[in-house]
Amino acid sequence: MFKKILIANRGEIGVRIIRACHELGILAVAIYSESDRDSLHVKLADEAYCIGKTSAKDTYLNINSIINIAIHSKADAIHPGYGFLSESSVFAKTCEEFNICFIGPDYRIIDSLGDKSNAKETMEKAKVPIVRGTKGEISSKSEAIEIAKKIGYPVIVKASAGGGGKGMRVARNKEEIISAIEESEKEAENYFGNAAVYLEKYLENTRHVEVQIIGDNYGNVVYLGERDCTIQRRHQKLVEEAPSPAINNDLRHIMGNAAVRACKAVNYNSLGTVEFLLDEDNKFYFMEMNTRVQVEHGITEMTTGIDLIKEQILVAQGEKLSFSQEDIKINGCAIECRINSENPYENFRPCPGKINKYIAAGGIGIRIDSAVYSGYSIPPFYDSMISKVIAWGRDRSEAIERMRRALDEFVIEGVDTTIDFHKQLMKNEIFKSGKFNTNFLEKNKIL
Amino acid sequence: MFKKILIANRGEIGVRIIRACHELGILAVAIYSESDRDSLHVKLADEAYCIGKTSAKDTYLNINSIINIAIHSKADAIHPGYGFLSESSVFAKTCEEFNICFIGPDYRIIDSLGDKSNAKETMEKAKVPIVRGTKGEISSKSEAIEIAKKIGYPVIVKASAGGGGKGMRVARNKEEIISAIEESEKEAENYFGNAAVYLEKYLENTRHVEVQIIGDNYGNVVYLGERDCTIQRRHQKLVEEAPSPAINNDLRHIMGNAAVRACKAVNYNSLGTVEFLLDEDNKFYFMEMNTRVQVEHGITEMTTGIDLIKEQILVAQGEKLSFSQEDIKINGCAIECRINSENPYENFRPCPGKINKYIAAGGIGIRIDSAVYSGYSIPPFYDSMISKVIAWGRDRSEAIERMRRALDEFVIEGVDTTIDFHKQLMKNEIFKSGKFNTNFLEKNKIL
Repeated sequence: MFKKILIANRGEIGVRIIRACHELGILAVAIYSESDRDSLHVKLADEAYCIGKTSAKDTYLNINSIINIAIHSKADAIHPGYGFLSESSVFAKTCEEFNICFIGPDYRIIDSLGDKSNAKETMEKAKVPIVRGTKGEISSKSEAIEIAKKIGYPVIVKASAGGGGKGMRVARNKEEIISAIEESEKEAENYFGNAAVYLEKYLENTRHVEVQIIGDNYGNVVYLGERDCTIQRRHQKLVEEAPSPAINNDLRHIMGNAAVRACKAVNYNSLGTVEFLLDEDNKFYFMEMNTRVQVEHGITEMTTGIDLIKEQILVAQGEKLSFSQEDIKINGCAIECRINSENPYENFRPCPGKINKYIAAGGIGIRIDSAVYSGYSIPPFYDSMISKVIAWGRDRSEAIERMRRALDEFVIEGVDTTIDFHKQLMKNEIFKSGKFNTNFLEKNKIL
Repeated sequence: MFKKILIANRGEIGVRIIRACHELGILAVAIYSESDRDSLHVKLADEAYCIGKTSAKDTYLNINSIINIAIHSKADAIHPGYGFLSESSVFAKTCEEFNICFIGPDYRIIDSLGDKSNAKETMEKAKVPIVRGTKGEISSKSEAIEIAKKIGYPVIVKASAGGGGKGMRVARNKEEIISAIEESEKEAENYFGNAAVYLEKYLENTRHVEVQIIGDNYGNVVYLGERDCTIQRRHQKLVEEAPSPAINNDLRHIMGNAAVRACKAVNYNSLGTVEFLLDEDNKFYFMEMNTRVQVEHGITEMTTGIDLIKEQILVAQGEKLSFSQEDIKINGCAIECRINSENPYENFRPCPGKINKYIAAGGIGIRIDSAVYSGYSIPPFYDSMISKVIAWGRDRSEAIERMRRALDEFVIEGVDTTIDFHKQLMKNEIFKSGKFNTNFLEKNKIL
């Protein structure tokens, strides 16, 4: 059994993983950049090591240094969180080589699912519906034009190694496709060090619905209901909810089973998320699989009662899943708002700086995941998310009213935040109706 | 429907009620003493009125001033919270006279149940088991000695108007009974302005188990499971949990039904709690009924999903209960630790003063109810409770581990708190076993 886990991440997800370790009686080792010295993840850890100055490359992406600290601190395992090295098969493999357990799926699974075009092939074999497109990477622009003609415009160019909305461009005609490919390739190279892109039919008026799954080393895979992440701005999720207001129990069951089938096809043995697009006819299409914990995992924890990170750690250490599919009941509704230090009135411009006063919301049905506090300075080098607020309610309407109440309560002085945006969204009639798709924020002015 | 509610209370329960109002779209009016100017309940209210200098008598107990502010601010209703005027039938009646809804049961019900010896008679008629003792108030010491001889020592002297452990004394023989009566009468006069006391058999090795109930104006009464409040220090609750580790489903059902029977006997039409003693043979005895929300109501909210304060407001405004007995399912386990600004190493001496730094615990399964923050000064005039921490888990052991983790996380600088006490309690093997009774803290050294 693990005695000590090194957390190769920062901020709120660092704090989240430390909490899981401590509840399991496992010591937590933090790493931090010089600019993250005051983050709560450093204060709450049992040991903490400064790993470098500021850049992600020198710190949270620095495989050598992280492995060295894990060896030095005698950590049995490394939890990568989300982002950074969480989907790096190289990192997972390196951990294995040094006899340190990587808390995530086998590196070969990361490899095969991380390549988005390869993942689509796997899904097709497992009879999971996929979106039509190139079989694999685009080899030439003329090939892309030909395929686009065959499947019909609009099409979307996506980075093979992508995620988080980076390296994506929509093209609505032959003229747009050239620049879409060039821009995607450039962004993909910048963000992922891999310029490969692929092409697929761009489905409009869809929702983003993802299924949370978890598997163990004994072939058990269970789905834990879905999350609806349709509220996005430039392919970036802002608000998530569980269950999806667009899904009934039958469809939940069908999509859940498709996700389980997909995972069983690759012997998936950890926590993961299968992302789907859902169209207006309730047809769903595999988009990608995230082989790590997601930012929005907490809403699933609120509706199922299951601590996903603890369960992820336990299956990594060789235990069987502590529940079966029949044990999973969806209880009420949970909504998450990501509070970012950004100015929503100025095109969501990031606003790092010192938080002079921070009083978080609380009380019934409210969960806060954060690494900040009164007097904390947000460094400008990383993600601008400073707090995740989750509101649970007996039904969707209670969850929305509770979220609105909680957002009203928040006091954050010194930096701009997206709280005003979320407040308005919670009052928006279309949002409240539950009937919207991923272009909602393009078509509706919230602030 | 209510448009505006005045909250005749302070601190965390003030905040709690404001949250319920805001989720229902009702404006909240706060009152505050000069020393409470900086409390969160003042900041979160839509309007706030200073009601006097510091003493409870001049402020939160001042019926005239409270009614005047309610009239001035055009409040439709008054929520009394717990303590202060919450069980004053005079206050409830005065509200009615001024056409302001008192959010609680009818004043006649408060009257009849507030008199503890009268309540026992009512319960006996409703076939709810009671502890043997004097029929009503003690008329003379010689009568008390005679009855004590009949029912057998030890006996307990209790204030008729009592509550919160005040005005209670145990006597183990004839010699002790005289001073027990004198001390109880003196304390009862001091705390409740009513020296009347009664006597009953003192049951040793019992647990304190209370049933949460709610009724409406249409004869519906539902029980919402029980809370175990056996962890007490000098009759003061420190830690509560739901469900009780000493109760199985059959007994839960029997006690729940007894509580419902008791309430139906008096046409109870609000939120309330029926307190029982449970002995080692699983026999239970009515102790008293609290006709108001209790400090520890939040653990019931965590295990049932029902917002008790919202429901209490809704039934007060004439709505039917939004659920029936069959809808109530107990989900997992919740534990509450009351964090007081007291020094547990020095006999729980109160430690008011400035909180220089306050970082509350958070994350999965943790609910915080509090009215303090970094920089807040705790006034020395009221209750020393500064924060309620509730941990929910899929089972009791997960709730305990989560509570331990949350307590470790708390940062409160500038004042002493009871956090260390709770930390040790969560590690105590007897506590973890669930097998203890109300003398646990007398018999076991925790710190």
